[in-house]
Amino acid sequence: MSKPSPHLTVHVPLDGGRDYDILIGRGLIAGAGGRVAALKGRAAVIVSDETVAALYAAPLRESLEAAGLRSGLVTVPPGEASKSYGCFAAVCDGLLAHKVERGDLVVALGGGVVGDLAGFAAASLRRGVRFVQVPTSLLAQVDSSVGGKTGINSPLGKNLIGAFHQPRLVLADTATLDTLSEREMQAGYAEVAKYGLIGDAGFFDWCEAHWAGIFSGGPERDEAVAVCCRAKAGVVVRDEREDGERALLNLGHTFGHALERLTGYDGARLVHGEGVAIGLALAFRFSARLGLCPGQDAGRVANHLAMAGLPTTLAQVPGGCGDADALLDAMAQDKKVRDGALTFILARGIGKSFIAPGIDRAEVRAFLQDELAA
Amino acid sequence: MSKPSPHLTVHVPLDGGRDYDILIGRGLIAGAGGRVAALKGRAAVIVSDETVAALYAAPLRESLEAAGLRSGLVTVPPGEASKSYGCFAAVCDGLLAHKVERGDLVVALGGGVVGDLAGFAAASLRRGVRFVQVPTSLLAQVDSSVGGKTGINSPLGKNLIGAFHQPRLVLADTATLDTLSEREMQAGYAEVAKYGLIGDAGFFDWCEAHWAGIFSGGPERDEAVAVCCRAKAGVVVRDEREDGERALLNLGHTFGHALERLTGYDGARLVHGEGVAIGLALAFRFSARLGLCPGQDAGRVANHLAMAGLPTTLAQVPGGCGDADALLDAMAQDKKVRDGALTFILARGIGKSFIAPGIDRAEVRAFLQDELAA
Ligand SMILES: NC(=O)c1ccc[n+]([C@@H]2O[C@H](COP(=O)([O-])OP(=O)(O)OC[C@H]3O[C@@H](n4cnc5c(N)ncnc54)[C@H](O)[C@@H]3O)[C@@H](O)[C@H]2O)c1
Ligand SMILES: NC(=O)c1ccc[n+]([C@@H]2O[C@H](COP(=O)([O-])OP(=O)(O)OC[C@H]3O[C@@H](n4cnc5c(N)ncnc54)[C@H](O)[C@@H]3O)[C@@H](O)[C@H]2O)c1
Ligand SMILES: [Zn+2]
Ligand SMILES: [Zn+2]
Repeated sequence: MSKPSPHLTVHVPLDGGRDYDILIGRGLIAGAGGRVAALKGRAAVIVSDETVAALYAAPLRESLEAAGLRSGLVTVPPGEASKSYGCFAAVCDGLLAHKVERGDLVVALGGGVVGDLAGFAAASLRRGVRFVQVPTSLLAQVDSSVGGKTGINSPLGKNLIGAFHQPRLVLADTATLDTLSEREMQAGYAEVAKYGLIGDAGFFDWCEAHWAGIFSGGPERDEAVAVCCRAKAGVVVRDEREDGERALLNLGHTFGHALERLTGYDGARLVHGEGVAIGLALAFRFSARLGLCPGQDAGRVANHLAMAGLPTTLAQVPGGCGDADALLDAMAQDKKVRDGALTFILARGIGKSFIAPGIDRAEVRAFLQDELAA
Repeated sequence: MSKPSPHLTVHVPLDGGRDYDILIGRGLIAGAGGRVAALKGRAAVIVSDETVAALYAAPLRESLEAAGLRSGLVTVPPGEASKSYGCFAAVCDGLLAHKVERGDLVVALGGGVVGDLAGFAAASLRRGVRFVQVPTSLLAQVDSSVGGKTGINSPLGKNLIGAFHQPRLVLADTATLDTLSEREMQAGYAEVAKYGLIGDAGFFDWCEAHWAGIFSGGPERDEAVAVCCRAKAGVVVRDEREDGERALLNLGHTFGHALERLTGYDGARLVHGEGVAIGLALAFRFSARLGLCPGQDAGRVANHLAMAGLPTTLAQVPGGCGDADALLDAMAQDKKVRDGALTFILARGIGKSFIAPGIDRAEVRAFLQDELAA
């Protein structure tokens, strides 16, 4: 029945009985049933997107049913557009149609889109039912499945509607990444590299040497996912509601979000991780320009991201991204920007990021103009 | 500017910095600005229904603006149908269009529909902004504005989607009840009487003597609202997530909800409080029949509710409510019914209610048949 698969474990020690485990390894889906059943619900209803469901819903349901859980499946179309009010309603009603009671479980099977949407539905259904994350994209395994942020988009902006709702268990089956597209893999890798750049120079060194094993599915993949989860979990436990340190996780994201906005959130042009990759390179070059960070560190960052197939300059944004003022305006709409003052995450070197509030607008403008002219 | 209006105060001592005050008195809306401004947001955006907004939004906004807060107004149509996914999205987007930031406030101005809807929107907007309740129906002042339950209806059932989200302040301006329809006033009164019946025989005595003052707007009105808020707040603080004692607040509601369901939630036929009034009378007559409660207590309950203009028998349900089996089926769909076993709130007398699990279906059936034949 439940195949004993070797795996790594990251414990997330949240208070109030909300602590949980993240298990990381190849083949965890086949053994998911026993682990989910241990949470003592009677039903476990899966939420997934059509692409991921076609690949992994059957073995997951089989495992759940074999462990004595009644299972069910609710799907949405793949893609960011499913993080909508309409899909929220459809998922909630789908879960209700599957008779999910207060003691039952919602299982999010998919990338960050499914995790965010299903997590918000679980938070809201009967004012809160428990949920399990089974992240299947690299981005979801190293980032979105950890931390308890759930939500959907409004026509007025991304991730503006949601809840803090922690999962009871995260099963990161790293074998599922074998079917992920090269481009989504690269995009997720930008977030992997980010953890090294934020606060773990040793991990960035290791990435430079071992990144190919992450892509090919060697043991380095599991190790990298575990390091990232441990890093994010640590930050989340120390700053669950993002009042302070958690902002460091946004390294590369102020620039990145602006680029996503300027490309109309059109994944065909730029996916989130690509925006982050350019943003990371920009954050380091901007730090170097301000005299905060050695120029060779900025160079290493860009070289490594490029090696992994990621863009690192504004010129690489397909269809362009407008001029410096358009970029500044797009940045000013970011949640991290308050009272018109620009707050950046900058770095004193690889692994030495910090929150830099009150950055001068003119300084950013001049930097962006030079980047655009380069 | 802020008129000093005499008022009663009920403090709700929730932990984790979530404690708040309920102020009760005539004219509190005119002085709301200073009290809301003391919560230190920069903007306070009102959510209301069109009926209530026409009556009270202007003076409330004036008071908020005079206290230096930027104000705004988002309205929905009056009525239960507004507790929908569509209105949830419209209210969230309306609040975003008014640029509600994480430190700002949402103000729910209206009956229980507006309170539940606006509260869920506040809980979800940017994963949680603070909100203030300004309840304007008797039901909202004594029941729905206290306790932190917020939510909307799904096509699959009432109140199935929502969040626990406590207000930061409740301003129950009892003068607003002067414009409430007689029927809504009576419906709310069923919940007032309920508090006496649950656990405060002295308050029920007082109600028998003073109910007319509650309806006419004498000082008895403020006193009754305060007693009810204090009773509900006490239960909520002891059992915030409704795992135990809070279930007592459902006295009369298992029958009441079944009647609402069987009349298609058509307020023209039966509003919630009317269902509760019949439910209270039934709960006491059923308790008496089981030999738990003196027959004269059941008689007093029905007499008093009838005096206040409320229905107390199944025969008074406009259009009828089907036979005993239809009633049992409708009850079995209630959230309080698990594993097919019927759990009732029964009473050993006025002010002596208790949770009675495992009530025999046949016993209930026989009782209902007699009630229908009476
Ligand atoms: N909650 C958080 O803390 C947090 C953090 C970061 C990002 N996010 C959110 O995550 C979302 C992005 O996540 P994402 O990049 O995983 O996007 P996604 O969920 O859309 O997945 C990307 C694509 O890959 C496909 N896919 C996923 N797993 C697959 C697999 N194993 N095999 C084949 N195809 C697979 C999906 O069907 C989809 O088409 C965004 O909405 C973002 O806002 C949330
Ligand atoms: N959250 C909780 O704990 C809780 C508890 C009990 C009930 N509820 C919910 O409360 C809702 C019922 O609340 P309600 O009875 O207040 O209904 P409501 O909000 O629909 O108000 C009833 C009617 O009275 C009107 N009205 C309200 N105040 C008025 C005033 N001062 N003057 C003139 N007209 C006024 C409204 O426009 C509406 O037409 C239900 O949806 C129920 O589920 C919630
Ligand atoms: Zn990211
Ligand atoms: Zn009620």
